[in-house]
Amino acid sequence: MTEFSTAERDAMDRALDLAAQGLGSTSPNPSVGAVILAADGTVAGEGRTAPVGGPHAEVVALAAAGERARGGTAVVTLEPCDHTGRTGPCTRALIAAGVARVVYAVADPNPLAAGGAETLRAEGVEVAAGLGEDRAVQVSRYWRTAVRRGRPYVIWKYAATLDGRSAAADGTSKWITSERARADVHALRGEMDAIIAGIGTVLADDPALTVRVPGLDRSPLRVVVDAAGRTPVGARVRQGDVPTWIATAAEVGAGADGRVDLDKLLAALYGRGVRAALIEGGPTLAGAFLAAGLVDEVVGYLAPKVLGEGLMASGPAGVSTISAAIDLEHVDVTRIGPDLRITAVPRRRS
Amino acid sequence: MTEFSTAERDAMDRALDLAAQGLGSTSPNPSVGAVILAADGTVAGEGRTAPVGGPHAEVVALAAAGERARGGTAVVTLEPCDHTGRTGPCTRALIAAGVARVVYAVADPNPLAAGGAETLRAEGVEVAAGLGEDRAVQVSRYWRTAVRRGRPYVIWKYAATLDGRSAAADGTSKWITSERARADVHALRGEMDAIIAGIGTVLADDPALTVRVPGLDRSPLRVVVDAAGRTPVGARVRQGDVPTWIATAAEVGAGADGRVDLDKLLAALYGRGVRAALIEGGPTLAGAFLAAGLVDEVVGYLAPKVLGEGLMASGPAGVSTISAAIDLEHVDVTRIGPDLRITAVPRRRS
Ligand SMILES: NC(=O)c1ccc[n+]([C@@H]2O[C@H](COP(=O)([O-])OP(=O)(O)OC[C@H]3O[C@@H](n4cnc5c(N)ncnc54)[C@H](OP(=O)(O)O)[C@@H]3O)[C@@H](O)[C@H]2O)c1
Ligand SMILES: NC(=O)c1ccc[n+]([C@@H]2O[C@H](COP(=O)([O-])OP(=O)(O)OC[C@H]3O[C@@H](n4cnc5c(N)ncnc54)[C@H](OP(=O)(O)O)[C@@H]3O)[C@@H](O)[C@H]2O)c1
Repeated sequence: MTEFSTAERDAMDRALDLAAQGLGSTSPNPSVGAVILAADGTVAGEGRTAPVGGPHAEVVALAAAGERARGGTAVVTLEPCDHTGRTGPCTRALIAAGVARVVYAVADPNPLAAGGAETLRAEGVEVAAGLGEDRAVQVSRYWRTAVRRGRPYVIWKYAATLDGRSAAADGTSKWITSERARADVHALRGEMDAIIAGIGTVLADDPALTVRVPGLDRSPLRVVVDAAGRTPVGARVRQGDVPTWIATAAEVGAGADGRVDLDKLLAALYGRGVRAALIEGGPTLAGAFLAAGLVDEVVGYLAPKVLGEGLMASGPAGVSTISAAIDLEHVDVTRIGPDLRITAVPRRRS
Repeated sequence: MTEFSTAERDAMDRALDLAAQGLGSTSPNPSVGAVILAADGTVAGEGRTAPVGGPHAEVVALAAAGERARGGTAVVTLEPCDHTGRTGPCTRALIAAGVARVVYAVADPNPLAAGGAETLRAEGVEVAAGLGEDRAVQVSRYWRTAVRRGRPYVIWKYAATLDGRSAAADGTSKWITSERARADVHALRGEMDAIIAGIGTVLADDPALTVRVPGLDRSPLRVVVDAAGRTPVGARVRQGDVPTWIATAAEVGAGADGRVDLDKLLAALYGRGVRAALIEGGPTLAGAFLAAGLVDEVVGYLAPKVLGEGLMASGPAGVSTISAAIDLEHVDVTRIGPDLRITAVPRRRS
């Protein structure tokens, strides 16, 4: 069992915070955090992955540390990469800076980038892995899952009353959940590379599908799943400075039902660098994603209200009988103001 | 601020446990627990309210304590009663036993029974109130609320998937929730004096509406809300040793819609001694109780599953627009096996 110093543990906590802050800004690269400790164990520099084309976390942190990196320790959330992509390999940068030890949380699942640990050891750098691994896996789950599946990590988010209604009988739904829950949704959107809605929702609600988080200046790609291209010219989703993709059946490909083929849609998004996508409804589209087994995480905001009638958050998902229900696991419940946020993961079917 | 000894605190905890155990067996009386401490502070006897007609908790505990009660302390969850109902006043029994001090959790809201503390003090007994008050109010909330409103405390219980479905598209609903959640429902039923279902549920599911709790030999009154008396002769709800009431519009009285008048139904149940009643569905009946403002508590069992379609747990509750939603407060979430139990209280409307 490898031993880690208190300074290394603190540095990993900080590095993971940095990695979490970068979510949504680094795709197709993972969001990584790095802290450089000087030989005396004090913090010499820190950094996180810059937006695409910019330097990786280790390089940012090494630049901040300067000469103090020599003989020190690099604490990184992901195994340093060993390949030359848009930037040179991080292993080279660490060796050149004279770092004596590298501590990382979790290995790189990408075969192209892996092998960093071996390269470092071959150059006489001490390498220790596994510190903060659980949280690192959690923080990087969008990217890790996407790389493994070759499609974006997909989150289905909905808001409903305790009795599962997403709108009242007259169609009103503003606001089911509290301001704090809505702020939480914006924070979640801020971690995404794409926000997806069905044409039904666009026609009914004309949502902007933008991110409103104070101080955040980027917005994910807005995607309308719209087989026949019916999104109105004046739709809010087409407005503003944020990129929008009206994904038609003609462009993406059609499924057997003539609708947009969801596998092809996700493949196209992956090709555009999207690693995390949020399905914002409506029920028809969410049901279709669920039926296709393409949902990796469910995030439901439940308001302490009863409506008794009105629209449901979910639509047909190919389940006709109770024994065929889509099982969820890893259920987490968090109070957000007066509301509950329930997150869970659909169990993979064999 | 009155001071309580450790022995008194422990005794009150035990008395409250006894009171909680008695729920469902004492109506129309409250379920009370009592512990008698001898003069040296050791436990001399304990007891809880016996089924109707039997002795009150104090009398049971005094009998167990015998001569050791003299000079001791009685610790009781409710202010000792001062009136002669089916049994003599508990104040007299405490005085006769020579108890020197009485500690109780909460005052008696029933004007007929109140005044116990004054009578005791007039006879030279030291009286201290408020120990364990919060839990006592919680444990006795069915009875306290019922006495205040002049109708039973009504709990609406439902089971649903995370997306609010109570049955799959083909009508199957066995089992949405886990065995542990179902055992929890049986424990809840065991605390009730009546279990109410609509004729729709009886015709669709033919439920027995009995309590299955190991070691529990009583069962609440089964009530079918059935305006036209359509409950089949062979329905399971009519079978077995448990009393059943088919509440027809002819017997209870009809509302403007010709259906069973729910206010009159609850008044009739109160007259029969029912202080706590569980609405077990279906959605139509639950919606009608909610619309009438007659639900005091909502208990939802949410299973970590998605169905996408199928029956909803709630039916029309007179809410047509989002701003008129029935707000819930005091939301509590507890994990029961893989499921979540969410309890909440509808906010009283002015
Ligand atoms: N409270 C909430 O959380 C929330 C969130 C979002 C929406 N909503 C409500 O949801 C309602 C709209 O929902 P909706 O179910 O009618 O529409 P929707 O799910 O937003 O869009 C469904 C439409 O998407 C298109 N589509 C293309 N490819 C598809 C595929 N593979 N699978 C499924 N759909 C595909 C189809 O139209 P084409 O065939 O023309 O392409 C389909 O009719 C609105 O009332 C809105 O207010 C509520
Ligand atoms: N998973 C669960 O938690 C759960 C629990 C229970 C039921 N269920 C499902 O619920 C379904 C049945 O529900 P349902 O909504 O059809 O029937 P329901 O709510 O059980 O019964 C409704 C009927 O009760 C009678 N009623 C009399 N007075 C009433 C009043 N004041 N207000 C409302 N109803 C009154 C009416 O029939 P009359 O006019 O003839 O009297 C009415 O049609 C079944 O499919 C069952 O499986 C699910």
